[in-house]
Amino acid sequence: MEDYHKPDQQTIQVLRNIANRLRINCIKATTTAGNGHPTSCCSVAEIMSVLFFHTMRYRPEDPRHYNNDRFLLSKGHAAPALYSMWVETGFLKENEMFSLCHADSSHESHHTMHKQHFVEVAHGFLGQGLGVACGMAYTGKYFDKSSYRVFCLMGDGEMSEGSVWEAMSFASYYQLDNLVAILDINRLGQSDTSPLQHHVDKYYKRFEAFGWHAIIVDGHSVEELCKALSQPRHQPTAIIAKTIKGKGIPGDLPAEDKQGWHAKPLPKDMAEMVAKDLQSRIMNSSKHLYPSAPTEDSPPVSLRNIRMPSAPSYKAGEKISTRKAYGMALAKLGRYYERVVALDGDTNNLTYSEIFKNEHPNRFVECYIAQQNMVSVAVGCAARDRNLVFASTLASFFTRTHDQLRMAAMSESNVKLCGSHCGLSNGEEGPSLMALEDLAMFRALPSSTIFYPSDGVSTEKATDLAATTKGLCYIRTSRHDCSIIYNSNEDFHVGQAKVVYQSKDDQVTVVAAGMMIHEALAAAEHLKKGIMRRVLTVEDHYYEGGLGEALSSVMVNEQGYNLHCLAVSHVPRSGKPHELLKIYGIDRDAIVQAVRKLMSGSTNAK
Amino acid sequence: MEDYHKPDQQTIQVLRNIANRLRINCIKATTTAGNGHPTSCCSVAEIMSVLFFHTMRYRPEDPRHYNNDRFLLSKGHAAPALYSMWVETGFLKENEMFSLCHADSSHESHHTMHKQHFVEVAHGFLGQGLGVACGMAYTGKYFDKSSYRVFCLMGDGEMSEGSVWEAMSFASYYQLDNLVAILDINRLGQSDTSPLQHHVDKYYKRFEAFGWHAIIVDGHSVEELCKALSQPRHQPTAIIAKTIKGKGIPGDLPAEDKQGWHAKPLPKDMAEMVAKDLQSRIMNSSKHLYPSAPTEDSPPVSLRNIRMPSAPSYKAGEKISTRKAYGMALAKLGRYYERVVALDGDTNNLTYSEIFKNEHPNRFVECYIAQQNMVSVAVGCAARDRNLVFASTLASFFTRTHDQLRMAAMSESNVKLCGSHCGLSNGEEGPSLMALEDLAMFRALPSSTIFYPSDGVSTEKATDLAATTKGLCYIRTSRHDCSIIYNSNEDFHVGQAKVVYQSKDDQVTVVAAGMMIHEALAAAEHLKKGIMRRVLTVEDHYYEGGLGEALSSVMVNEQGYNLHCLAVSHVPRSGKPHELLKIYGIDRDAIVQAVRKLMSGSTNAK
Repeated sequence: MEDYHKPDQQTIQVLRNIANRLRINCIKATTTAGNGHPTSCCSVAEIMSVLFFHTMRYRPEDPRHYNNDRFLLSKGHAAPALYSMWVETGFLKENEMFSLCHADSSHESHHTMHKQHFVEVAHGFLGQGLGVACGMAYTGKYFDKSSYRVFCLMGDGEMSEGSVWEAMSFASYYQLDNLVAILDINRLGQSDTSPLQHHVDKYYKRFEAFGWHAIIVDGHSVEELCKALSQPRHQPTAIIAKTIKGKGIPGDLPAEDKQGWHAKPLPKDMAEMVAKDLQSRIMNSSKHLYPSAPTEDSPPVSLRNIRMPSAPSYKAGEKISTRKAYGMALAKLGRYYERVVALDGDTNNLTYSEIFKNEHPNRFVECYIAQQNMVSVAVGCAARDRNLVFASTLASFFTRTHDQLRMAAMSESNVKLCGSHCGLSNGEEGPSLMALEDLAMFRALPSSTIFYPSDGVSTEKATDLAATTKGLCYIRTSRHDCSIIYNSNEDFHVGQAKVVYQSKDDQVTVVAAGMMIHEALAAAEHLKKGIMRRVLTVEDHYYEGGLGEALSSVMVNEQGYNLHCLAVSHVPRSGKPHELLKIYGIDRDAIVQAVRKLMSGSTNAK
Repeated sequence: MEDYHKPDQQTIQVLRNIANRLRINCIKATTTAGNGHPTSCCSVAEIMSVLFFHTMRYRPEDPRHYNNDRFLLSKGHAAPALYSMWVETGFLKENEMFSLCHADSSHESHHTMHKQHFVEVAHGFLGQGLGVACGMAYTGKYFDKSSYRVFCLMGDGEMSEGSVWEAMSFASYYQLDNLVAILDINRLGQSDTSPLQHHVDKYYKRFEAFGWHAIIVDGHSVEELCKALSQPRHQPTAIIAKTIKGKGIPGDLPAEDKQGWHAKPLPKDMAEMVAKDLQSRIMNSSKHLYPSAPTEDSPPVSLRNIRMPSAPSYKAGEKISTRKAYGMALAKLGRYYERVVALDGDTNNLTYSEIFKNEHPNRFVECYIAQQNMVSVAVGCAARDRNLVFASTLASFFTRTHDQLRMAAMSESNVKLCGSHCGLSNGEEGPSLMALEDLAMFRALPSSTIFYPSDGVSTEKATDLAATTKGLCYIRTSRHDCSIIYNSNEDFHVGQAKVVYQSKDDQVTVVAAGMMIHEALAAAEHLKKGIMRRVLTVEDHYYEGGLGEALSSVMVNEQGYNLHCLAVSHVPRSGKPHELLKIYGIDRDAIVQAVRKLMSGSTNAK
């Protein structure tokens, strides 16, 4: 068997010792904290031990080195098991682990990014790890062209999440033979048994049907794990590990393989008894195991100073949709930077990421109609600063990925999203394909930056700014052509609004973005005169959580101002964009009317 | 073969005629509208014809009758094909179909609920139909105990969505032998081929592995379809129909089985040519087909006047968490009404829907860790007013279902959701399990109603109000115990705030909800005196899209008021609730401080 040297008896004993020390540490730490999932840690003890001290190749002193094998703990509630491994490598001190779950500690119940150099992405949700692992494995195989492997440890509960099966399809479609998923089939969930319980044959059939190489093992047998993890790989590999939740807690105590012990630390006296018993199973050994060093075959990468090399070349009067301007801007950026990559979900001829695809086919990843996985793959591709990732699909489809976006924000992931066909101005496709809630969603993601450009120039500038702005950025583009408003040399900054039309006689400030700017400009043609103490917002979005509310929250204490908001008040129908803007009261006529009312002083907000 | 009588040649010819008329109608209607997906309609022509005029049993004059077989068009972009069938049944007039896609028409490009009695739920998104069908089939088998069947027509593109596989698992787990999925495997997506193209064997393996009975057929063979749809059923059945996109468009025209024809109406002259050719294939027949009548074996159900039969019985000073109060209220409601049902996603011992489960086990549906599918199943169970459905899980997990919720709102679905463990006050589980964005998400769902109760009494009242308030309702509950604030006879109304503490000397109004009320009350103990022109909001949520912004948008034009908002400003860590409230500035001390600042006039909003 390729690569497989059966470990000697001493090695096996040391791996078992590490597993049992993991159990002791996890039980103690969670009991001390009064919180956590000790039984979920116990079921993965041997898996973690074998992965970290037999299978994976990495630099223990530099957990995020780009040549290292990657490890993702998708069952994030077993975080103490991860901390325990980094105690074993010497990277963490034992006492650091015990501050677990306290607000003043960096080691949280579900691991986050906070100062934890060995954590790739924040967890705490389920069913997202494999998608991120796919992004890393895709990067390893196709972008880095390197030998590092990606290991993802999953729980059986999260196998019910559809996102897992999106990732399964993706991995086999792209033949990610550097990807290994290890399934901890411990049978018990939060409130009930998992639907397939210990029927490992059913899992086997599903993985094989999804194009994976599946291997069933006893998840507590160090020998079987060592062997399975050394098998040759021509496909993504799934190790189906049959395990016992709470394994190692003596049989006369009621926590091994018992319902009702999820997310429950052991009482103090019980924890002490169990620790003592586990300690007695640890055999002295003169042997010490060290992780194997990684192969140094990944190229170094720098994403610093990626920015548009020249100003946009649009001319006044030219017409282009912002979605097409996005595709052109992205292709242009990609022309100068090798590590700019693009993802899309079977919509590249709608979002215009096809322009990038046609120009840089090797840096385009088709994710098909699986938006959740697309976002997770984007996060995986962006991890360890290997790529600057832009992922696009219809703006309305991003609601599908709300949870993945939330976790990306928490992971401080540097991904860039572009949603096209926003708002009523999408037109005939009907309300389900009009994003009218995306601003509310992205605004409530911590540290996210939203760009809503209104012409070709501002779209190219937004793409440029998204490239240089750290963290999650969202570019909202529109379907239909519109005129160029800005000069190519116009300077844009995050958080800064532009005055695109003004006169000495202005009485009302109209605040708008995207397509609505064009309606506002058309309305301005009808209007004149006064002092600027009235403000009107216009947006192609619902009232809730959008531009109007954002401005309300800023202006609420400003005295003597009058704010009026125009937005979409209920589920729209489909039709021609200009008809819809009229029906739902956000077109130029509505703006003219609202401004006239504001000027006559007869209007209140909403 | 059970039930299977091979149709005679005349029947077969009539079914083919119906299929070709469908093609003609869809091509003409989309060309007239200049919008739509004619090639996606052509691939399902024979499937629709056989389903509507050979397989399904329903009353054509009463499409939503509760005894009818159900039909769901999950590939919603083929909506014209659905309209065409209802033209064939006589329910729709042919000219009604041609107003398709116009803003003043009720027939939209992706079908919505607008006046369309034959549409179960709005579509336009992909991968959601099967989950809704599961809810209908579950209702048919377990609640109605009736013989009606549920048919769901899906596209191959949407098979990449994870939600489909959540539904697949659910259907086999509950042995929904009354459920039939028909897969239109036409090979071509929006911008590319679908990942599995025409490899029907791969689909076959996946369905069988997920516990379905799968049958491969030529999707354009009326005979094969009739036979497959008549097979005996002991499991959910998947008909894998190999089809051609644009089937029927003559070979010398470039639209059959060709990329680049998704979402594209044919040019006028081409449409006319094709229609003529198709017309020539329609053979006169004296036979007319009528749908078979349904078996009248479903019980009539009324959901009117479902309301809590008595006032809450909490006593002043008693302590209970709002999540537990929800579980108790739901169990109480279920005691009086047979058609109150509850769903949960492996969190029933956290949300306390377990109280309902223990009392009414036959009306509790365990959906496991597949939240998207849980929401879709809820929508399916609620369809045709068969059940009053309450679905619960952790509040943060609902972000996973944003798209399903959006479609539920558009479908005017009468589902009730309860999210527990909201906000910082969740405590030790870390930021991924604190819902801090759920208010923003639910507020931006059209016509949704949000309840954020603060004690046992208001939670029971909220459950009662949710039962009687039409449409999507969301109840946000908290993890930890808190005191009873309200009297059991207190009258609550949707949209009405309560004054829970006041004095003649008040200077500041503190607006809060849920756990934050208790912090505000504690703060009030420290404070006194003045006139009410200052307002403070406190919420266990991010600033964006929450309570503060909602109030800002209302108060922005009120002169002489001063509004200050306390909310969570960035991703929190995990820890004890009281520690977290303190760190993030939303506890009683922060309220005291903010009120003092407001009183001294030194504070601006946020």
